[in-house]
Amino acid sequence: MFLKNQWYAAALMSELETGRPVGRVICGEPVVMFRTESGTLAALEDRCPHRYAPLSKGECIGESIACPYHGIRFGPSGECTLIPQQSTIPSLMRVKSYPLVEKWGWAWIWLGDPKAADPASIPNYWWFDAPGWKSFRRLFHLNANYELCADNLLDLSHTPFLHKTSVGVPEMVTIPFETRVEGNTVYQYRVMENVRPSPFVAEWGQFKGNINRRATVTWVPAANISAELIYEDADTSITIMLTNPLTPETEKSTHVWFAWSRNFGSDDPNDPMSKRFEAQSLQILEEDLSLMEDQQRIMDQAGEFRPAIISSDATLVQARRVLDRLRKQELSA
Amino acid sequence: MFLKNQWYAAALMSELETGRPVGRVICGEPVVMFRTESGTLAALEDRCPHRYAPLSKGECIGESIACPYHGIRFGPSGECTLIPQQSTIPSLMRVKSYPLVEKWGWAWIWLGDPKAADPASIPNYWWFDAPGWKSFRRLFHLNANYELCADNLLDLSHTPFLHKTSVGVPEMVTIPFETRVEGNTVYQYRVMENVRPSPFVAEWGQFKGNINRRATVTWVPAANISAELIYEDADTSITIMLTNPLTPETEKSTHVWFAWSRNFGSDDPNDPMSKRFEAQSLQILEEDLSLMEDQQRIMDQAGEFRPAIISSDATLVQARRVLDRLRKQELSA
Amino acid sequence: MFLKNQWYAAALMSELETGRPVGRVICGEPVVMFRTESGTLAALEDRCPHRYAPLSKGECIGESIACPYHGIRFGPSGECTLIPQQSTIPSLMRVKSYPLVEKWGWAWIWLGDPKAADPASIPNYWWFDAPGWKSFRRLFHLNANYELCADNLLDLSHTPFLHKTSVGVPEMVTIPFETRVEGNTVYQYRVMENVRPSPFVAEWGQFKGNINRRATVTWVPAANISAELIYEDADTSITIMLTNPLTPETEKSTHVWFAWSRNFGSDDPNDPMSKRFEAQSLQILEEDLSLMEDQQRIMDQAGEFRPAIISSDATLVQARRVLDRLRKQELSA
Repeated sequence: MFLKNQWYAAALMSELETGRPVGRVICGEPVVMFRTESGTLAALEDRCPHRYAPLSKGECIGESIACPYHGIRFGPSGECTLIPQQSTIPSLMRVKSYPLVEKWGWAWIWLGDPKAADPASIPNYWWFDAPGWKSFRRLFHLNANYELCADNLLDLSHTPFLHKTSVGVPEMVTIPFETRVEGNTVYQYRVMENVRPSPFVAEWGQFKGNINRRATVTWVPAANISAELIYEDADTSITIMLTNPLTPETEKSTHVWFAWSRNFGSDDPNDPMSKRFEAQSLQILEEDLSLMEDQQRIMDQAGEFRPAIISSDATLVQARRVLDRLRKQELSA
Repeated sequence: MFLKNQWYAAALMSELETGRPVGRVICGEPVVMFRTESGTLAALEDRCPHRYAPLSKGECIGESIACPYHGIRFGPSGECTLIPQQSTIPSLMRVKSYPLVEKWGWAWIWLGDPKAADPASIPNYWWFDAPGWKSFRRLFHLNANYELCADNLLDLSHTPFLHKTSVGVPEMVTIPFETRVEGNTVYQYRVMENVRPSPFVAEWGQFKGNINRRATVTWVPAANISAELIYEDADTSITIMLTNPLTPETEKSTHVWFAWSRNFGSDDPNDPMSKRFEAQSLQILEEDLSLMEDQQRIMDQAGEFRPAIISSDATLVQARRVLDRLRKQELSA
Repeated sequence: MFLKNQWYAAALMSELETGRPVGRVICGEPVVMFRTESGTLAALEDRCPHRYAPLSKGECIGESIACPYHGIRFGPSGECTLIPQQSTIPSLMRVKSYPLVEKWGWAWIWLGDPKAADPASIPNYWWFDAPGWKSFRRLFHLNANYELCADNLLDLSHTPFLHKTSVGVPEMVTIPFETRVEGNTVYQYRVMENVRPSPFVAEWGQFKGNINRRATVTWVPAANISAELIYEDADTSITIMLTNPLTPETEKSTHVWFAWSRNFGSDDPNDPMSKRFEAQSLQILEEDLSLMEDQQRIMDQAGEFRPAIISSDATLVQARRVLDRLRKQELSA
């Protein structure tokens, strides 16, 4: 069961600026998203009621999207605006529409009760709008449930094992962390003082000796995860933000958004430091995605998922509890 | 549910002239077709009763087909003609046989009650046998229900949208048409007078000015569709016939036969006019097939198909009504 | 339903000597096999109880296997030997273990009651350990039930048809054979006296004239098949052993082990005679595998398997009867 009364990162705004519609299945629902000529953002059911053709294979024309099959057009609220073959519009000729809101470079969709759709509850990813910050973003497709992906990001004690050839450092297993729940948000804090920076970090911050590190991972339901990584010594403080909104496609597949932002270094997306980081990120992500698809396959074989809990699961257990509570709320609503 | 008491175009005669058996699933039933040494046409269940090997991977020998696995042979009426391993033939060792009739270059199969199999009810595609007519034929495989394909051919108001870079002309949306039902046959008529011919048509007919066009689409159940397209001025009249017998493979896949015939122009299948038409036909067909596979996928996701009807659906609605009536007849028989 | 109280050839010992774990699904159960540093053979459930990652993607470390995801380790009896993230080990943190025994170059697994696992019931393939015998082995993957594969090996009257371009000789259809059942073992005997050797056999045995042939096929449940082929004249006797333990993967797929052994000729695995035999074996096996996958597909379409029996099925019918009896025994145990 998907949570419908939540905002999901559904498309990059750059995808919607092309003038072409974007079709994507979100929480099991086929959706077409587009921006009209006048700039309105629209998300509609991706199924023409006439003969079930996908509107996302059609064209944006003025304030409407036209079906690729017979040219029937629909406006941003799902109303039919033109049937080329006739002048009257039957009442059945309309599609569902969904709130779609631009924020932090993404278009966020709300699949539940439109009256409850408050854009203020979109996660606060201020760094995408702040001066001095540089970001890149990617979309990955994962053949596994989104909760498996959230688990991965909320328990970094896996890094020395799964990513041992790249970012894994043995200490990640034993560094103590704190979990805090505030309302529906779950935080994980880690502090390391007077530690040696990795070669990458030393180069980024021009650190000569040991540094202090602080990491805060934030989980906002349904599955929006961000991590603030601060590296500092007496002279310098640099910050990296990782942003991972996870958007369920089906019960067994996920749109994994990945963004990396920094408040230091070159503005040039092609400078060697950026390129190197990007290449490394992609390797790490592939290791994660491949393992999660194995998990999904094994869960499917087993027909159930009853994990044995260990101490490093403390944060993800809290996140899964919030989800359970929210699911019960939606079911009883 | 498939209609069994109908003729389905099952194979090209040219496929059966090779001396090798043709295996094909038709209306969910695996069938092997072959021509015996003496010329008899045979269609059998494509499953050896001994150990369920496909007879279609075997060999035609004399008046029989031999199983590829243990060499057991079956004749045109499904009787076992040889068991190499023993001299007696047990009564279970036989396969179903089906009426298979040659007509218009196809072998037509009848899966229902053999006593009702009257070859006179095979659609009349006289142009394949008439002097002066040139044809080419192809077989396409579609991952969608055959009714979606019939819908496509019975509502040409889709052409300006789906085929806008090729044959689509905006007028197709608004040209009035007439639908007529005679028994189980559905006709669609369109007349356009004093219109400008497309460049292709002008070249084919050597037309200097405007022409009159008449189009008659004919649907014969279960899903045999043909279109007669007449282009004429005071001096010349040329005709193109499109022939599309649609043969269900499964509930979600179809053998799409495509033939194009003309009563004018060169006899040479390699002349530039023929080649150009063929290339264009294939592009159009690919656009259609891809859209229909999208429809099937969306229907499967939706779990139902309750289309909203518009005026251009008038003909296909009649065809679907005839199908419903025939299905009820077969169910109550 | 699989027989669990049987030994299945699960891995080649050479696969386990690499120090890397081998993951394989056997009778529907995901299994990881490895050899510890001290030489112990281990077979465990291939699913970490922590978060369902596949242990087979992990590493062998000392006497344990470490999960690829969070480094949790398990020893040969399934006990957790290390949780890197904490010092206590919860009781749920253990995996199933299975008896795994080395014999004749394979590791044999027992999925049923461990108390009943007597290595003495592993089939006797003495030729892999006997001096003067040369063997090669391969593993094939078949998308069909293992019983279809056993059927194939127990009725060689298929060879003149399915393998007519290679080993098929017409006489195989009519040579009389004898079937004998001893306990759970089924034997098939064939004797041919004063027959002409095939060119291959003539070359192998340096036979100048006619020879006598004796073939004994042995089936041991669940599906271990071997064939002893003896070719001899007054001066010479040569023997080929074919060894085919069939290990079910799922109800519709099988690990097909194939081994060929001989007590004559060169020891060099690259000599032309060996190479030629190997190439021919692979062609034959591909013909068999392809046909069996067709059978499985047709059985799936038909929804049942009620074969019509002929005389050459006499041996396989006995084997299937033993299987039925053993299945009933396991169900009633």
